[in-house]
Amino acid sequence: MITRSQLQLAQDRAAKMLVSVGIDITPIERQNIEVAELGLGELDRTGLQLVVYVNTDRYCAKELILFPHQTCPEHRHPPIADDPGKMETFRCRWGRVWLYVAGEQTHNPQCKPPEGSEAYYTVFHEITLNPGDQYTIPPNTLHWFQAGPEGAIVSEFSSTSRDESDLFTDPRIRRIPEIAD
Amino acid sequence: MITRSQLQLAQDRAAKMLVSVGIDITPIERQNIEVAELGLGELDRTGLQLVVYVNTDRYCAKELILFPHQTCPEHRHPPIADDPGKMETFRCRWGRVWLYVAGEQTHNPQCKPPEGSEAYYTVFHEITLNPGDQYTIPPNTLHWFQAGPEGAIVSEFSSTSRDESDLFTDPRIRRIPEIAD
Repeated sequence: MITRSQLQLAQDRAAKMLVSVGIDITPIERQNIEVAELGLGELDRTGLQLVVYVNTDRYCAKELILFPHQTCPEHRHPPIADDPGKMETFRCRWGRVWLYVAGEQTHNPQCKPPEGSEAYYTVFHEITLNPGDQYTIPPNTLHWFQAGPEGAIVSEFSSTSRDESDLFTDPRIRRIPEIAD
Repeated sequence: MITRSQLQLAQDRAAKMLVSVGIDITPIERQNIEVAELGLGELDRTGLQLVVYVNTDRYCAKELILFPHQTCPEHRHPPIADDPGKMETFRCRWGRVWLYVAGEQTHNPQCKPPEGSEAYYTVFHEITLNPGDQYTIPPNTLHWFQAGPEGAIVSEFSSTSRDESDLFTDPRIRRIPEIAD
């Protein structure tokens, strides 16, 4: 649950980050910046902000805006009917982001899961994304990511997004925002 | 046909434009900047430069770099087997670009086809793309575009790219670059 004033504050903060790095969005996109609060009530720590540029039945493109040290928690994109699950490419545009996927656990990883939620993080193979770096996540594969100390802006190129079908490891998470009036 | 030195000059010029607007690419992407000279021998006027970020069997993302007043000539992406043809979204990141698609002819359009090639331009419905603006082109639809006086950088989000299948209105055009040694 997020209040309208929390939503607007987060939208303002994300919009300022985009402006500061020279990424232009339209007034309507600005107004519709999605704040994925995820229902844990700790947006600064767990959640993310999104500008959806396009989402057709063939492909999708978004800009992900992460506040400093903000974590997008562990999840996967499962198969749905004929779709084998969303495949996505993260390309870091600004800041730094650490991505964790299934595979050999990285020694001394740069990030820790948010305190109190450790039980819901199970993959620890670390990939560092600096500006210009990218990584493609296969369908139906667990992953999570956390921004560095300045935050991060990440372009996501993918097959069709069906956010409501995302499966989070943490059962408390609600992907679709609920806004308190 | 393009010589290696012409190729390198165009790559340098495109790379400098990316740097100047803060779009980071890796050294390998820098080395592989595609210069689509298109076989007409007039790259400054007709052609474009591309950085292909990702092209999977599900989606594709590229950065298109256009020099001042450079034109990407009229073409379409036809159906191939089960694929209804490439669908693509152009999002202007920097500069200005005018896109022409089928539809009512625009009075006093901003651009003219390159001199001597007028016969191969048949659609004149104009769409202006400033930074932050985008437009989605349906599959198998004729389109061409031209950059403004500063050039343009355009993100392309699309279904899978099969450039070798592009159908240009101008039969002289060769989409796949031929490099002279």
